[in-house]
Amino acid sequence: MSERIDAHGAASGVVADLAALLGDRLTTSADERAQHGRDESYHPPRPPDAVAYPVSVEEVQEIVRLCARHGTPVIPFGAGSSLEGHVLALRGGVTVDMRHLDRILEVNAEDMDVVVEAGVTRLQLNRHLRDTGLTFPVDPGADATLGGMAATRASGTTAVRYGTMRANVLGLDVVLADGALIHTGGRARKSSAGYDLTHLLVGSEGTLGIIVRLRLRLHPVPEHVVAAVCAFPSVERAVDTVIAAIQLGIPLARAELLDERAMDAVRRYSRLDYASTPTLFFEFHGSDAETRADADHVQRLAEERGGERFRFATTTTERDRLWQARHDAYPAALALRPGARGLTTDVCVPISRLTECIAETKADLVAASIPVVLLGHVGDGNFHLAFMVRRDDPTELAEAQRFADRLVERALRLGGTCTGEHGVGIGKMKFMEREHGAAIDTMRRIKTALDPQNLMNPGKVIPARASASHA
Amino acid sequence: MSERIDAHGAASGVVADLAALLGDRLTTSADERAQHGRDESYHPPRPPDAVAYPVSVEEVQEIVRLCARHGTPVIPFGAGSSLEGHVLALRGGVTVDMRHLDRILEVNAEDMDVVVEAGVTRLQLNRHLRDTGLTFPVDPGADATLGGMAATRASGTTAVRYGTMRANVLGLDVVLADGALIHTGGRARKSSAGYDLTHLLVGSEGTLGIIVRLRLRLHPVPEHVVAAVCAFPSVERAVDTVIAAIQLGIPLARAELLDERAMDAVRRYSRLDYASTPTLFFEFHGSDAETRADADHVQRLAEERGGERFRFATTTTERDRLWQARHDAYPAALALRPGARGLTTDVCVPISRLTECIAETKADLVAASIPVVLLGHVGDGNFHLAFMVRRDDPTELAEAQRFADRLVERALRLGGTCTGEHGVGIGKMKFMEREHGAAIDTMRRIKTALDPQNLMNPGKVIPARASASHA
Repeated sequence: MSERIDAHGAASGVVADLAALLGDRLTTSADERAQHGRDESYHPPRPPDAVAYPVSVEEVQEIVRLCARHGTPVIPFGAGSSLEGHVLALRGGVTVDMRHLDRILEVNAEDMDVVVEAGVTRLQLNRHLRDTGLTFPVDPGADATLGGMAATRASGTTAVRYGTMRANVLGLDVVLADGALIHTGGRARKSSAGYDLTHLLVGSEGTLGIIVRLRLRLHPVPEHVVAAVCAFPSVERAVDTVIAAIQLGIPLARAELLDERAMDAVRRYSRLDYASTPTLFFEFHGSDAETRADADHVQRLAEERGGERFRFATTTTERDRLWQARHDAYPAALALRPGARGLTTDVCVPISRLTECIAETKADLVAASIPVVLLGHVGDGNFHLAFMVRRDDPTELAEAQRFADRLVERALRLGGTCTGEHGVGIGKMKFMEREHGAAIDTMRRIKTALDPQNLMNPGKVIPARASASHA
Repeated sequence: MSERIDAHGAASGVVADLAALLGDRLTTSADERAQHGRDESYHPPRPPDAVAYPVSVEEVQEIVRLCARHGTPVIPFGAGSSLEGHVLALRGGVTVDMRHLDRILEVNAEDMDVVVEAGVTRLQLNRHLRDTGLTFPVDPGADATLGGMAATRASGTTAVRYGTMRANVLGLDVVLADGALIHTGGRARKSSAGYDLTHLLVGSEGTLGIIVRLRLRLHPVPEHVVAAVCAFPSVERAVDTVIAAIQLGIPLARAELLDERAMDAVRRYSRLDYASTPTLFFEFHGSDAETRADADHVQRLAEERGGERFRFATTTTERDRLWQARHDAYPAALALRPGARGLTTDVCVPISRLTECIAETKADLVAASIPVVLLGHVGDGNFHLAFMVRRDDPTELAEAQRFADRLVERALRLGGTCTGEHGVGIGKMKFMEREHGAAIDTMRRIKTALDPQNLMNPGKVIPARASASHA
């Protein structure tokens, strides 16, 4: 079925067909293949055999049709900022780089929605919206493409207030495995008209089709934004403060935790005036009165739990300075060990179990020999460990992986998930059976029904069938 | 493949097998079959061949397995309050009445979620939650079962604030066509772990499996509730008021429109002190200060648009009296014509097109010879016409259907959907190709993959394959 491309010599059928379609927007250059065979993670690169740069939805359809005809895998590529190996070409094939599908097609201020091509990035969209009073608030940190964010069901620091991509994708245009283009969802605020394909495709990581356009929900730019930072004697006390705020219904727009190691890394990296102690970073959105009242309320909750050095900021410059530590956390952690890569965990547990999960995790990490920091979107019950590993040292990788595996086991025992926002890719596949049980078989049936040749980003999300039968 | 049950004589294989499993909780009595072959709509009844009353999830699994073995259709049944023929036994078979799966299994106050069996009704759940400070706010009017509400992706008067069942179902336990039980979703507030089966199954109307348990999101009981009513010189002015309020971000908890005919029907039915003029019913949830400020703001918006006789209510008794007209609207409309049934439309359009859609619809209805009222969840862009038809008069049915069809065409032209909240059932199937295009083929592939024998509520949601090929 599969036709391996000879990328280094004479182009075989699919490359010749694609080159005829795309001209020099089809490349087999080693550099470009290498750039597209890796993401921001520790996973070893796996370059594709060729990279295609379509400029239209019709070209994406034609690329997929040609690959289907030749039995060649197709891997969509956005900004390459994913963390679980989603873009690696495990079985070779053609990577479809979406960068030229970067048009913002509609802004509907009255209905507060927008239609974009999949290669538009979130910062590009927000620049475009600057004068509309509207914003797209989902913020995973990286300037990811919106297609990639939908494909991985991304979220980030603002999900506690605005929800994840699941809540903010209203509809999709998707090229399926046979090249057909489908439209899902729509402009009405609600619909009961048939199966919810939009939400089946959000989070499907390119394994069911390629997202080419998205209709997204916009939100009003908040009238007023207040940032606040508070230091705590322990991670547990910090987490308890956030849980109390959530249970009291205080509308947190962001609630981020950095543990003492992350704060220490940031201090060294950015020479910021912070203590090396667990620290919460908050943001409040609303009217002037609301945000001040909310911040005051959270300050009281924090101080009751041992929080100190509570600081506010209301101007953009002050806010940016206050939050700089949070923004620098990942590069600061990487700087702990030049040349290292981040092996990042992503569990998410029910809020009621978060303190317990973090406490057990911190106790476990006492034995770690590798630098590791903890960063948390604690308002969602989601936190990350980032182990700074040398990718070419199997002993280190194995050690970090053992800690990461124990953390997932812990999260699943507490009713959580192996991935809150990064997606499955190849890194979390081994937990899928454990987390989903018989439902994995249902996912597999859907995958087979929509991609019978298994050419759409193969080897990701759904593990190969185990010997256990369907029950 | 299919084994027709001889329900009136000696039981054939499947009835004998089911009777052996369920004893007298399997019935072929004509009365019970008739009760289960109809819903609240104008669709002619189609009784099943037998009705099963399981008391456990395991029994549901066994019923489905036995029906699969005999090639017998299986139709889940909640409260029978659906409006599009969802429960009709088009091809005979066994109706599975979920009334005995009525246990509330978990209430997690800290995480604000609950686990219920599918036969629990929304009022039963809210009675159970009375002392917790939490509530399940989705309110379709009828005291539907929560399983049925999830199956039809129901919503109702509070969706403008709390979302539909899509936003409020966190996970499901579902019995698939082969009797397998799967668990979807989970307790974490977010997850990127694989395909979102929860949202594929919400709105699938029993065609992919039978929902047996649900994990639902709860909300805090609002601190304060203010109701308000305002009369308008025209439906358009009323709708404009709601659109203005939404675009200003005023958090409406409910925003319901009754047209002059609906108000007139209510006046006759309930002898209420209202004018026969288009009227908006509002509810505001929040703190004392917030709700008063919001209501004042909406009053100003209404008065700027010709609204008058603006009335408030804050106590439960006053609120109930103020809202009685809205609650009585459907029975009042039915009382216009004793013996009639409601043929109900359910379009939902983008908010920006709602005024236009309603104005064109009102103009079209001038020619109607059948009593018809307009009720709208206008904050969502969703409104209903209810034609009071004599079900046995084909001329009347055909006339009402022509108006309804034109309304759907209008809504689709304006970027809307044929059904905002009632679901497809059999009544909206004819619009599915038009609304979804090639995506219907994707839905069909999923249906075939999960229910290869086509035994799960067959003949609903997905129209039979047309001659047009997949492109």
